[in-house]
Amino acid sequence: MRSVKAFAPATVANVSCGFDILGFAIDAMGDTVELVLKDEPGLQVVSIEGDEGKLPLEAEKNTCAVAIQAMLDELGSNVGMNIYLTKGLPLGSGMGSSAASAVAALAAANRLLGDPFEKKDLLPFAIAAEKVACGAGHADNVAPSLLGGFALIRDYHPLDVIKLPVPEGLYCTLLHPHFELKTADSRSVLRDMIPMKYATIQSGNVAGLIAGLYESDFELISRSLRDVIAEPYRAVLLPGFYEVREALKSAGALGMGISGSGPTLFALSKGKEIAEAVGEAGKEIFSKIGLEVDVYFSEINTRGAYIIEEK
Amino acid sequence: MRSVKAFAPATVANVSCGFDILGFAIDAMGDTVELVLKDEPGLQVVSIEGDEGKLPLEAEKNTCAVAIQAMLDELGSNVGMNIYLTKGLPLGSGMGSSAASAVAALAAANRLLGDPFEKKDLLPFAIAAEKVACGAGHADNVAPSLLGGFALIRDYHPLDVIKLPVPEGLYCTLLHPHFELKTADSRSVLRDMIPMKYATIQSGNVAGLIAGLYESDFELISRSLRDVIAEPYRAVLLPGFYEVREALKSAGALGMGISGSGPTLFALSKGKEIAEAVGEAGKEIFSKIGLEVDVYFSEINTRGAYIIEEK
Repeated sequence: MRSVKAFAPATVANVSCGFDILGFAIDAMGDTVELVLKDEPGLQVVSIEGDEGKLPLEAEKNTCAVAIQAMLDELGSNVGMNIYLTKGLPLGSGMGSSAASAVAALAAANRLLGDPFEKKDLLPFAIAAEKVACGAGHADNVAPSLLGGFALIRDYHPLDVIKLPVPEGLYCTLLHPHFELKTADSRSVLRDMIPMKYATIQSGNVAGLIAGLYESDFELISRSLRDVIAEPYRAVLLPGFYEVREALKSAGALGMGISGSGPTLFALSKGKEIAEAVGEAGKEIFSKIGLEVDVYFSEINTRGAYIIEEK
Repeated sequence: MRSVKAFAPATVANVSCGFDILGFAIDAMGDTVELVLKDEPGLQVVSIEGDEGKLPLEAEKNTCAVAIQAMLDELGSNVGMNIYLTKGLPLGSGMGSSAASAVAALAAANRLLGDPFEKKDLLPFAIAAEKVACGAGHADNVAPSLLGGFALIRDYHPLDVIKLPVPEGLYCTLLHPHFELKTADSRSVLRDMIPMKYATIQSGNVAGLIAGLYESDFELISRSLRDVIAEPYRAVLLPGFYEVREALKSAGALGMGISGSGPTLFALSKGKEIAEAVGEAGKEIFSKIGLEVDVYFSEINTRGAYIIEEK
């Protein structure tokens, strides 16, 4: 039977001052989904590897199947597929795990059906899957995972996603400390009301970050990577946050922040050497406070999800 | 005696979603300052034209003299100058009247002294003058008046001003209705605390506006020109605001908002014809509600303050 295998990258949502509106994709890792056409209708999740048995195989709860079903519903199609998911990134880490699965599934399904959709038009289906996986239909992981680079989610009603330029030589370091932080807890510490003054500071910084990306101005990017409305409240949930921040900056990072709702931290750097040194510096602090940590670093992924193989 | 005459343009601060961080300059009008070297030290405001006698001639209260004095203090100079100010824009209109005077004075003084400062380095002196004129050292009028184009004030501590690109063919229409709106009143209706959700919406829109300016994407600029944290509260102070807004958009404006703290309204449009039609549409609504209005339209000024004449 005909089959397609697709890859979708891990992503960093929020991006410090870009709280709830920005995300970017990283080359370091991602999820892979293989789809095989079936003779009869229906989506079946045949296997999931790399999840330690934690993810649901039931089609109505599985993020890959939910995403593909949303696409089939739009097409009025009842094509059947077997789904084989290989997780390349850890669950609940804040690196867009569910998003990468949904996006890889959609990229593969779109190709399997003869590319009925433009890449960007797959976004609503991925958002529908995020709603099932995370309880909220955020786009700040699925948009960069699908499109690559930095994605700005200007609005949801209607969806308005803008792909932003990526300065050459911009690297990301990810530090994933081994402890669990529930998204619900990470959300619950946020304030419903914030000082007007903070909103203005945040606006200024996000505007600076966008200008910095367009200008390839690393200094401006660095000055702009400050989050005054989420990070101060979330940092208390993250052991060693301020020591790690200090160490990453001393090692040369342009800036850092919480990846998604954590516990993974991200840092942006100019060049591979600094990105590597930043990872080492973070690892040292985490080991001092007795936390194991996985470190990844890579360039920003600019092509998003792509097809690995078709038969 | 040696003399220099300089011009500085009117400006629109806030720019809708750019509340408190953005401003741009317009070609339509501005202030002119002529400085003449004196033999003895001291700044003397000799004459002010076009202010209907409302502006102070005392050097310590006059925005031109305060700005020049700040510059002289920095240089450790006690050069004396006679100051002749010609107001080309109305006071208290929300078009950066005090900023244009201060900036024109600084541009002239800098040239008179042999250009000891880069243009951008004159900003702190202009901000010092704004503190005296407005009670707050805002930079969102003085920065675009000095530098031209769109200016982003990312931060004040330290001052971080970024000049943004201007899409070709972007026009501004200004509608100055004849009624007084005190800046203090316009400030007092603002909220100290705002919903986190609004801060995120505002961030998304300002990020969209910046991207739109870099991409010359008029549609994106149009979608992004929405202010959810200041305009809804200030609109109640402006008779006919929502009817005018509707009329300007119907006439083809990309978007509109309150210029500075009002009462002047601004609209951005693609091309001269639309900018003119937008002005007519606004005038019609204002005349229906019995308000006289002055209408101006022009391209965005991209060169900022400049020297008109030196002798």
